[in-house]
Amino acid sequence: MNGKSTMMDFLEEPLPGVGTYEDFNTIDWVREKSRDRDRHREITNRSKESTWALLHSVSDAFSGWLLMLFIGLLAGSLAGLIDISAHWMTDLKEGVCLAGFWFNHEHCCWKSNTTFTDRDKCPEWKSWSQLILGYGEGAFAYILNYFMYVVWALMFSLLAVLLVKGFAPYACGSGIPEIKTILSGFIIRGYLGKWTLVIKTITLVLAVSSGLSLGKEGPLVHVACCCGNILCHLFTKYRKNEAKRREVLSAAAAAGVSVAFGAPIGGVLFSLEEVSYYFPLKTLWRSFFAALVAAFTLRSINPFGNSRLVLFYVEFHMPWHLLELVPFILLGIFGGLWGAFFIRSNIAWCRRRKTTRLGKYPVLEVFVVTAITAILAFPNEYTRMSTSELISELFNDCGILDSSKLCEYVNDFNSTKGDDLPDRAAGPGVYTAMWQLALALIMKVFITIFTFGMKVPSGLFIPSMAVGAIAGRLLGVAVEQLAFYHHDWAIFSGWCSQGADCITPGLYAMVGAAACLGGVTRMTVSLVVIMFELTGGLEYIVPLMAAAMTSKWVADAIGREGIYDAHIRLNGYPFLEAKEEFSHKTRAMDVMRPRKNDPPLTVITQDSMTVEDVETIVTKTTYSGYPVVVSRASQRLVGFVLRRDLIISIENARKKQDGIVSTSIICFTDYCPPLPPSSPSVLKLRSILDLSPFTVTDETPMEIVVDIFRKLGLRQCLVTHNGKLLGIITKKDVLKHIAQMANQDPESILFN
Amino acid sequence: MNGKSTMMDFLEEPLPGVGTYEDFNTIDWVREKSRDRDRHREITNRSKESTWALLHSVSDAFSGWLLMLFIGLLAGSLAGLIDISAHWMTDLKEGVCLAGFWFNHEHCCWKSNTTFTDRDKCPEWKSWSQLILGYGEGAFAYILNYFMYVVWALMFSLLAVLLVKGFAPYACGSGIPEIKTILSGFIIRGYLGKWTLVIKTITLVLAVSSGLSLGKEGPLVHVACCCGNILCHLFTKYRKNEAKRREVLSAAAAAGVSVAFGAPIGGVLFSLEEVSYYFPLKTLWRSFFAALVAAFTLRSINPFGNSRLVLFYVEFHMPWHLLELVPFILLGIFGGLWGAFFIRSNIAWCRRRKTTRLGKYPVLEVFVVTAITAILAFPNEYTRMSTSELISELFNDCGILDSSKLCEYVNDFNSTKGDDLPDRAAGPGVYTAMWQLALALIMKVFITIFTFGMKVPSGLFIPSMAVGAIAGRLLGVAVEQLAFYHHDWAIFSGWCSQGADCITPGLYAMVGAAACLGGVTRMTVSLVVIMFELTGGLEYIVPLMAAAMTSKWVADAIGREGIYDAHIRLNGYPFLEAKEEFSHKTRAMDVMRPRKNDPPLTVITQDSMTVEDVETIVTKTTYSGYPVVVSRASQRLVGFVLRRDLIISIENARKKQDGIVSTSIICFTDYCPPLPPSSPSVLKLRSILDLSPFTVTDETPMEIVVDIFRKLGLRQCLVTHNGKLLGIITKKDVLKHIAQMANQDPESILFN
Repeated sequence: MNGKSTMMDFLEEPLPGVGTYEDFNTIDWVREKSRDRDRHREITNRSKESTWALLHSVSDAFSGWLLMLFIGLLAGSLAGLIDISAHWMTDLKEGVCLAGFWFNHEHCCWKSNTTFTDRDKCPEWKSWSQLILGYGEGAFAYILNYFMYVVWALMFSLLAVLLVKGFAPYACGSGIPEIKTILSGFIIRGYLGKWTLVIKTITLVLAVSSGLSLGKEGPLVHVACCCGNILCHLFTKYRKNEAKRREVLSAAAAAGVSVAFGAPIGGVLFSLEEVSYYFPLKTLWRSFFAALVAAFTLRSINPFGNSRLVLFYVEFHMPWHLLELVPFILLGIFGGLWGAFFIRSNIAWCRRRKTTRLGKYPVLEVFVVTAITAILAFPNEYTRMSTSELISELFNDCGILDSSKLCEYVNDFNSTKGDDLPDRAAGPGVYTAMWQLALALIMKVFITIFTFGMKVPSGLFIPSMAVGAIAGRLLGVAVEQLAFYHHDWAIFSGWCSQGADCITPGLYAMVGAAACLGGVTRMTVSLVVIMFELTGGLEYIVPLMAAAMTSKWVADAIGREGIYDAHIRLNGYPFLEAKEEFSHKTRAMDVMRPRKNDPPLTVITQDSMTVEDVETIVTKTTYSGYPVVVSRASQRLVGFVLRRDLIISIENARKKQDGIVSTSIICFTDYCPPLPPSSPSVLKLRSILDLSPFTVTDETPMEIVVDIFRKLGLRQCLVTHNGKLLGIITKKDVLKHIAQMANQDPESILFN
Repeated sequence: MNGKSTMMDFLEEPLPGVGTYEDFNTIDWVREKSRDRDRHREITNRSKESTWALLHSVSDAFSGWLLMLFIGLLAGSLAGLIDISAHWMTDLKEGVCLAGFWFNHEHCCWKSNTTFTDRDKCPEWKSWSQLILGYGEGAFAYILNYFMYVVWALMFSLLAVLLVKGFAPYACGSGIPEIKTILSGFIIRGYLGKWTLVIKTITLVLAVSSGLSLGKEGPLVHVACCCGNILCHLFTKYRKNEAKRREVLSAAAAAGVSVAFGAPIGGVLFSLEEVSYYFPLKTLWRSFFAALVAAFTLRSINPFGNSRLVLFYVEFHMPWHLLELVPFILLGIFGGLWGAFFIRSNIAWCRRRKTTRLGKYPVLEVFVVTAITAILAFPNEYTRMSTSELISELFNDCGILDSSKLCEYVNDFNSTKGDDLPDRAAGPGVYTAMWQLALALIMKVFITIFTFGMKVPSGLFIPSMAVGAIAGRLLGVAVEQLAFYHHDWAIFSGWCSQGADCITPGLYAMVGAAACLGGVTRMTVSLVVIMFELTGGLEYIVPLMAAAMTSKWVADAIGREGIYDAHIRLNGYPFLEAKEEFSHKTRAMDVMRPRKNDPPLTVITQDSMTVEDVETIVTKTTYSGYPVVVSRASQRLVGFVLRRDLIISIENARKKQDGIVSTSIICFTDYCPPLPPSSPSVLKLRSILDLSPFTVTDETPMEIVVDIFRKLGLRQCLVTHNGKLLGIITKKDVLKHIAQMANQDPESILFN
């Protein structure tokens, strides 16, 4: 009796450890979702019993929303903090504010009591040469400023790489490939932990401030996901369930993009299109909420000082003409070519780093790249400024009062009416700017290849957009001047006569930015929506869409993978791409193990093996689970048992249950066969047996098997023929098979 | 030899009819997708052979985009046509233009050479009394106008119902419940056919013009889907594949909403959230394209005469205050309550119509409802105008020059500075408008219940929005006056002092409209995005979201189903809801047929049954498919064969193949067992056997089974126990089980 009651408890309360996963393993979505449904069912049933339980049930239902609120608040605050610090530290490279060293350049000159025509110049702001030498002009002052710029840049980036190396190795890179993999059901412990969050936040500020060719947008998604993961610990519902937690992470990713661009709808679509794997509609609504809270938190912090939600606020006045689609499509082609070129070169360089001794000196690498970047960047005004400022300036439509070099047109005040500026001849400033921008373009194109993948946090959105924006602005100015000098050409007749404002170079910059970003990431809808949220006018969706479509087609024609997928494959993560169709004509029998001529599949019988037999099997093999069959002869499948659960249960039974010895029979059936009285007691393990393993027949086409793995999130699937168990297919087998069919090395898939 | 070669041909070329579906049946998504992949594989393989084949492969790849372009163009044009005609015919109820009877009121007065202060009054436009009696004032003229209004309304609606009844019975209603069902994989022949398209387009104009309480938005989705379905016939890829065609229909639905509201992003999200079942990311991008093309086609037709894309263009000047969230949430509660009330009453009424003699007199019903609507509507200015005009006026923020009654405030020109109007005391016009609006609200609430579901095209978006907009405007004016007269109250201090413009009643109307629409349809993200695209300001997303969330929660607490799902259930369509989790603890064995004590499952053996045996089984049973087993004794599953394929193949073989008689053995295996030479030749049917039927074990929880059915789009699934075939679960069984578990009548599921 005593033994029986112990066993009953044992059956009811799962052992600690049963049902958890090891690091670098894939979760079983079906099991996780079942567990959550069980939990939910229990809470609902109990809620009828007492008021307290009812309250618990209500609070459980609302905990998701509460969590989203917290994530939005935290992600928004962190983004604001990062923006403010990065802005300050970027300016620190050039000088310091006497009114208070914690003011950045713009802020410093706001505080100044005197008004100047040029908002950037005020006595309180001292460049380093002014501070040290007392004057800011002349060759020596220039060299000193140059030197200080490079030194600060090196300091920031070295501090960043040392912090990453010393405290949180997972904090490097953009994090999006890993987050995609995690969301698809992979476990990387610590990747979204608190140390990663702290170090990534700090080093992101340092890396951005150092002037390296990288952005903060991708890493912000990682930061937001860390927030989401950490905040999950507040609620049992999400802490204990890997599937539910991934729903939260999808929403957090949306919040990350939302604060990165001030585009909540774009953020949700980005999460849906690019990052997430399992995205039920409930999550869509919650993600939207989190993204909105995050965006408004950021706005109330107001880091850009303009009360605007968006990073680059643009307002265009003129509609575009249908003929302008030609240059827009050209920009799309450029974006596609650049995207494909960048992905190839970057992957080649990263592979080199992985496989040669280069990878052993991350600090040196960061030092060299920063030094080269800083030395090349300082002389050119457009590379010296931070990349987001550059993009902002390139997107800008020249008004009558704009003092920037890009807007130095020959003014003919007679033809100006009100706000409407006609197309004008470019002045010398514009021509200088063109040369400098062309040089900046070349520099950015090459340096970004070496920057993305270093051991510092580095996003790719901003550098990609910068490349596109420069190219777009160059083309835009060229078209504008063409139209100005040759408005009598037939192609301009009717829409671009003399004195008309027909070309907006800023729009070209924006279209170019979209094209390049699209070429690198292969985003589609989310890209257009993010850009739309920047301008706020449905007017400009068509040019953006034309460029994004062309760019994606061109890039896809050269190489199918976007940069994130390429990095996933480079790292051998077990990611099952949901977008690509599996198109080969293989069948389940070609993929399953054991292959022909291999020894037969290791199985456990349902009621005839002893504890010792099973222990031998577990020791001799490394499979993560074993099918249970009626008998070896019939090979009729009963269920599936996981290695981890088996080990824990046997160990526990040997310790705690009376009479369990090596010769005890393990029984997986409901009613165990009667044994002679002398034999040791039976170990009943039905509770850990999965009675509903997924099966397919050996003739099932692999395309269907791949579809089942994707849609149901399976970890393994058993293969039968005419009702007899034949073999097993795991997620890893599927991934290896896909790699093999695509003529890639199947051994590149590293994890389970 | 001859016989064999015939058979080889027979095996290679599928028979006509094999692999198609009957009307009111569910498609098998897995099979359809496999077929498309086979097709695609073949084209890709062939493309390496010749330039022509390569071109074919490229054109095949782009045919999807071309199709989207056509759908966008056609849907946009039809929407423009409908808008223009409905506008003209609505005005026809009140009068006619002398300058040309084909001008509507507004257009007529544009054409007028004379300028008037009131844009609506010009000598060319004659009301009926002016035309007939020669004067427009006085009791008799009023009665004549009243009479003409009712007569036109009755004429329009009767014509509509007669056309629907006589030519295209599927053209009635909003069509969204049926489209949801079709997209989930159901076949309703003719529902998206050309007759439905023609008749629905015409009758939609008639129904909208008749002044009934209905909108054109839902039916526009149906019209767009008809366009999509018809245009599919241009491309083999989509014509022959039910799964691919449904991708196109999803995109067409997005285009429909896009033109209905001028909201392309909202349209795509609506299709994703509300309508579609299978929505791969590729479709998302294409839907967006179709939606955009449709929106721009509509804009170039310019039916609203304002060059705006959107139906209700709103521009608000003032930000909202956090405290205003309280009335916004109140509106949310109102919207939720109204939604739940509407759904219950409407379903009760529709059920009554279905079950009693009422349903036999659709023409009479339309006559009575139109008569009541027209008679009640004419005396009240706000119900006499078309509902979309009403909404537009309610959304509008009162400017200084607005002459409408709703903007008749007591002006204090001293405190006015520029465009910024402070809150003012309401004048008598506003008070009159309030009473009229309250009466309009009561009328709309009740008449809509009886209108939705009649045998004319009828959308629910506009009436729902109207109810919410009226309630919102009433509350908005109330809050505004409260703030004006009691600006010294503590709650107003700090943000609504005297002379400040703090309350925008138009915003309240908009929030109310969102809340009511949300309560009825249970849309979430798409609702907010559609409303966001109307205003174009991220500012107002928070109020909209607060109202939409509250409304959904309140409505869900009363009844889980939205109006479309309720109508699906009412009609017994086999729709497997993807949003609701199945939460009961039943297992596959509880749902499968045969039940306990039933005769065993009808099976076919793989190589021992004669043609006659099989024909007897087919005649005696009505199942749509039969499992094939090794032998009756072992019950080991080999595959699954569809009834339709079996009948067609046997018939065909009997006609065309030599030596096939009733005693011929049917053999489903690769190598048929040798037979004595005297016996008739064997009928080989392996080609129609599905060798990879889906199986689950009897212990599989139903929640997982439901998940598999949903995600893979299965039609049936076989149930095994320890490798032996036990039973079968079809989609209908699953739906019946869900209905039973929800305490509904399982027999309400009508179709297969």
